[in-house]
Order: sequence, then structure tokens, then C-alpha cells
Amino acid sequence: MKSHTEYLWFHTKKRQEFIRITDEVRAVVERSGVREGMALVSAMHITAAVYVNDWEDGLIGDFQEWLEKLAPAGRPYRHHQTGEDNADAHLKRTLMGHQVVVPITDGGLDLGPWEQVFYAEFDGQRRKRVIVKVMGG
Amino acid sequence: MKSHTEYLWFHTKKRQEFIRITDEVRAVVERSGVREGMALVSAMHITAAVYVNDWEDGLIGDFQEWLEKLAPAGRPYRHHQTGEDNADAHLKRTLMGHQVVVPITDGGLDLGPWEQVFYAEFDGQRRKRVIVKVMGG
Amino acid sequence: MKSHTEYLWFHTKKRQEFIRITDEVRAVVERSGVREGMALVSAMHITAAVYVNDWEDGLIGDFQEWLEKLAPAGRPYRHHQTGEDNADAHLKRTLMGHQVVVPITDGGLDLGPWEQVFYAEFDGQRRKRVIVKVMGG
Repeated sequence: MKSHTEYLWFHTKKRQEFIRITDEVRAVVERSGVREGMALVSAMHITAAVYVNDWEDGLIGDFQEWLEKLAPAGRPYRHHQTGEDNADAHLKRTLMGHQVVVPITDGGLDLGPWEQVFYAEFDGQRRKRVIVKVMGG
Repeated sequence: MKSHTEYLWFHTKKRQEFIRITDEVRAVVERSGVREGMALVSAMHITAAVYVNDWEDGLIGDFQEWLEKLAPAGRPYRHHQTGEDNADAHLKRTLMGHQVVVPITDGGLDLGPWEQVFYAEFDGQRRKRVIVKVMGG
Repeated sequence: MKSHTEYLWFHTKKRQEFIRITDEVRAVVERSGVREGMALVSAMHITAAVYVNDWEDGLIGDFQEWLEKLAPAGRPYRHHQTGEDNADAHLKRTLMGHQVVVPITDGGLDLGPWEQVFYAEFDGQRRKRVIVKVMGG
């Protein structure tokens, strides 16, 4: 069994940003030499998400508006009594999910025609990491 | 390490359908010959979900009503400016999750007494796929 | 490829409880002898969740209040016509997610600085299980 681990770093300019990372994940898988297996792509910070969906700016706007409605910023969250102001970011990342497992077949990402891997930052403007861990043969 | 990949095809009659696929996943695992490992079951289309929950029609109705409330159809989503009309399906699938990893122990699915694997279609009436990727020894 | 499986048992005093299980997962991984791989941590009951987020009581309170708002108890759910009274627990666990995959690097859990693994019980006061399945080399 082969195993290969890399970390992707992000430092967004805006507090909230959605970034497509399919190509970066594919490059890690190619460097791993794994032909059949799985790649775990997982946010290492708890106010960011990793998810799979469409690469279409309108839909990304719909996601952002929807998340703001279901998990609004600026409420008197208890978490803020610790001095934090990002409780909504924890909730938003929970809705989107914090990790995906990408299947690897014949050395490539085995994704459907519209599947793209995204990193969703909800409390950015600082350095944060995503682990990409590849396992297989 | 053994690896085995199959694809399940769906072509639902209704736009939204929830289909139990535990038996199909079990059959793939049996064909894989894997005794100890994991099976990734992942929707390859971005308006469908794969999730684990109860096989009870009332609860499935509750899920559908709940999803309609949290991610309603028929709103002026930005995604619809591209000619699409399914933004709500993208949101609904995000709430349910698009993949599960099923543990395999002693050659069988290691599920709790009520765990069932479901495919949830939110924009059907066309051919769509789910990948089942088994890894282990 | 090595594989190692253990089950964590829970019997909460309250109907709803959030329990940190990072140390229990770490101990299973250490017993597995796996140096590079993944640990699947998955609730085996369909009214409980396993998720990764912050170990901060205020935030846990925020999560609980938020879940009650998005998936309230005490509504006339169809599932309750079967004699059950826990449909909201099925919905809440769906929002939080029922499983996580924890990467293992150099024999330890490869988690970010604030990542903690939690078991979230939404219909407790009885014995329930979580599977921890470790795969790797």
C-alpha cells in the first residue's frame, strides 16, 4: 500500500472565499503514484469547508446567500463570550462539510462530469491548511 | 491491497426520489473479495446525495418536507440565470451529504441495526451515476 | 495493509449530549500500529453524529441552539406515526454529519490545532456504538 501526504495552504484576502482546488488535488494524486485508491481532502481549521459541487459563480453566490440565511453572522452567539466573533463560520462550515474523499481510478480522479472540489473559507485573512492524504496501490 | 470499483446507474421517473441501495453496495463488496476495509459510496452528479439513515417511509417524507423548507425550489436563484432551474437540488444534496464510507469487517458491511444506505435524487429523470469504490485486504 | 477495528460504546444520561472522543480515537490508532493511513469514525446509530469542530462549551451551546432552530423537536413529524418521537434527532444528526475520516501520519492523528472529534447524541439514555476502523501501513 502506498501513502502520500501534502498540505495545501490558503491565505485569503477576504473573510469569505470559495476556491476551486480540483487541479491541486489532482496534482497531489499524480505525485503520489497511486493508480487505485482514495484521496482524503480535509480542512485542518474548523471555520473552513471542503466540498464537491458545481464550478459556476451564480451557484456559489446562491450558496453564500443561503449559508448567511441558515447560519447568520452578527448574532449574540455564546462562543463570542470567549472573545471570538466567528461562531457563524463554524456553523457554515458544518453545513458544507469539512472533508471529501475523492476516488482514484487508473491514476486519475474518478469524478463525474460536473464535480469540482472546493475550499470554502469562512474566517480567512490568515494562513490555513488543507490536508490531502492519498492511499492506495 | 485490493481495490474494486463499480458504478450504480439511476434513471428516476420523478424529479425527486429516495432509493435504498444497501443491497447493491453489499453486492459490490462481496464481488470485491475484500474482507477488511472500506467502501466509498459517492454520488457522481452534483444534484444527488448518498446518505445513511432509517428505512422508514414516514421519516423519508419528513426529510423531504424539511429539505423543501430549508432549501426551497422556485426561488430566484442566481444559478438560474444560466438557464438551469435546479439550484435548490444543489443545496438539498449539500444538506444530505454526497458520499458515505461504509466499513467492511469480516467480508460484510459493518453497519448498525438501523443503518441503511440511500441514494437521494433531487434532479432526476435522466441517467446518473454513483461510484462504489472498495479498498482493503 | 493493516486493518484494525474497535467499537466505542456510549450510554448518555441526557437525551442530548456532546462528548469529545479525540483521545479515544487516538488510542485506537495507537493500538492499530498503523503509521500512515486513515481512521474512519462513524456513528452506528441513526440519531447520533460524529463531527470535527472546536472544544469550547459556548460553541457547543451555539450548535445545540442552532440545531433546535433548524430541526426542532416536538413537531408532528410523520415518523412519529410509527410510535417514535425522535424524528428531529434524525434531522439534527444529518446536519452535523454521521462520520469523519481522520488522517494518520507518522503514527498519530494528523489534525489541525483546534480540530477535535466529537460524538453528538440526539436520542440517548440507551447503549449506542461508534465504529473506529483504521486502515493503512
